Amino acid sequence: MEVVSTVAELRARVSGWKRAGESVGLVPTMGALHAGHMSLATASRGECARTVLTIFVNPTQFAPHEDLTRYPRPLERDLDLCQREGVDLVFTPAVEEVYPPGDSTFVEVTGITKNWEGELRPSHFRGVATVVTKLFLMALPDRAYFGQKDFQQQAVIRRMTRDLHLPLEIVTCPIVRDADGLALSSRNVYLSPGDRQAGLCLPRSLKHVEELWRNGERDPARLTRELRSVLAAEPRMSLNYGVLVDPMTLEEATTPRNELVALVAGRVGQTRVLDNTWLRMSASDHQGGN
Amino acid sequence: MEVVSTVAELRARVSGWKRAGESVGLVPTMGALHAGHMSLATASRGECARTVLTIFVNPTQFAPHEDLTRYPRPLERDLDLCQREGVDLVFTPAVEEVYPPGDSTFVEVTGITKNWEGELRPSHFRGVATVVTKLFLMALPDRAYFGQKDFQQQAVIRRMTRDLHLPLEIVTCPIVRDADGLALSSRNVYLSPGDRQAGLCLPRSLKHVEELWRNGERDPARLTRELRSVLAAEPRMSLNYGVLVDPMTLEEATTPRNELVALVAGRVGQTRVLDNTWLRMSASDHQGGN
Repeated sequence: MEVVSTVAELRARVSGWKRAGESVGLVPTMGALHAGHMSLATASRGECARTVLTIFVNPTQFAPHEDLTRYPRPLERDLDLCQREGVDLVFTPAVEEVYPPGDSTFVEVTGITKNWEGELRPSHFRGVATVVTKLFLMALPDRAYFGQKDFQQQAVIRRMTRDLHLPLEIVTCPIVRDADGLALSSRNVYLSPGDRQAGLCLPRSLKHVEELWRNGERDPARLTRELRSVLAAEPRMSLNYGVLVDPMTLEEATTPRNELVALVAGRVGQTRVLDNTWLRMSASDHQGGN
Repeated sequence: MEVVSTVAELRARVSGWKRAGESVGLVPTMGALHAGHMSLATASRGECARTVLTIFVNPTQFAPHEDLTRYPRPLERDLDLCQREGVDLVFTPAVEEVYPPGDSTFVEVTGITKNWEGELRPSHFRGVATVVTKLFLMALPDRAYFGQKDFQQQAVIRRMTRDLHLPLEIVTCPIVRDADGLALSSRNVYLSPGDRQAGLCLPRSLKHVEELWRNGERDPARLTRELRSVLAAEPRMSLNYGVLVDPMTLEEATTPRNELVALVAGRVGQTRVLDNTWLRMSASDHQGGN
């Protein structure tokens, strides 16, 4: 495994592989790697001849009051995990390599960024869209891997990739959870044992609507009420939103439909926690003519 | 010469050439081709094995009151010119091919877009940056060719290409002029003979400051006064701006320096006319130690 920090080195390695006919998968991360990230690398290794993992804590997706400076940066441990996962190349650029002096270009996705995380963190998705575009254009991979855990983020990246005609495929991988059900997140290290316990109301609320869905409930108003009643039972959860949305537009659903995503997010103490579940018709439902 | 309208066809041709080791030059245009455009194709043919010219009247760079619907679209004549110039491929996408349904992604360059055309046409450069990014990512050329005539536009595209790490080189080609000195523009067809005569105050004002510059004048305030005095002598020119700017920041220059661009723009009747000249130290000046 090689570790490089410049675009020139990254491009030299990737173009060498491409010339040799090898496909390239990209796993963009902010480091502080956990099993969720590693599942993206595993997916890439399964579909691509070569896997590049990037570690870059992107300053432009943090607001001034957010946790940029205290965001965990355990580089040695991260590189060790990459090595063991069989990652071919780790790209660890400095801020000035990604944002050259006088940098003044932004990529902005409108519409699906209006609500939820976009409303709570007004310039967050502009920072995400811009840095992901840069990473895509630095590495020029065939595929890039993102986790479903940040559902709105993967929707923004998919939309941007399609709209700008970025020449790669976006792959969204399932949420990875700890044994207690909490979705993995680099920010979970901030949680005390009591905080974790409170955070578990998110997966509990999602399991509840999954069960209602499996039993045929399709009314978004009813599902939303049920979702929120589970969340409201946890006094330590300061809820940001608990909603049923259309998976494509990310607008709150008001009429019954065959596919919904339940998005939940809040704060426990100082730490934000997010989770979601994708409610779809199963194959047998489709055969049943629904 | 082949003419294609879909991204799939465009990519198939370009990737075939690249696999064969042939370099690819891109000439993005809005059609209504003139000798200025053709000089870009000539430059591409001189430096690249293959040349792609795109014809796309981009709706998002026109404001509602501007001339989108009456913008000239002489496609047969354009294709004929491309054929004679030795262009390999012409790409003529429909609006929906460039902007898929629900398109909601923008590329925005801040700073250098604040003044001049950016101030007069508030969403113009956002439209330009977005469509040029799309065309670059559709075609994936090695080089792309733009005219110096739209000086601020080429500066925006250079900045954006650098900032986003777009994997290609931007080439800016000299302004091409008619025998009377007027810079070529697709919009010149709107000009009556009297309008043309009035429009000639633009190149006249630039020639005047070029001569002062050659004679050693470096004071931007003095050069600006002289520039504007020539422009003011033409009563039919409704001037938008006549300024000396720094070629990199596009800020108005207030102190003497070794490189300046004189930007002039205005309206004759209903038609906008733009021109500029790049004032640089010559090699002999440099040898003289300035």
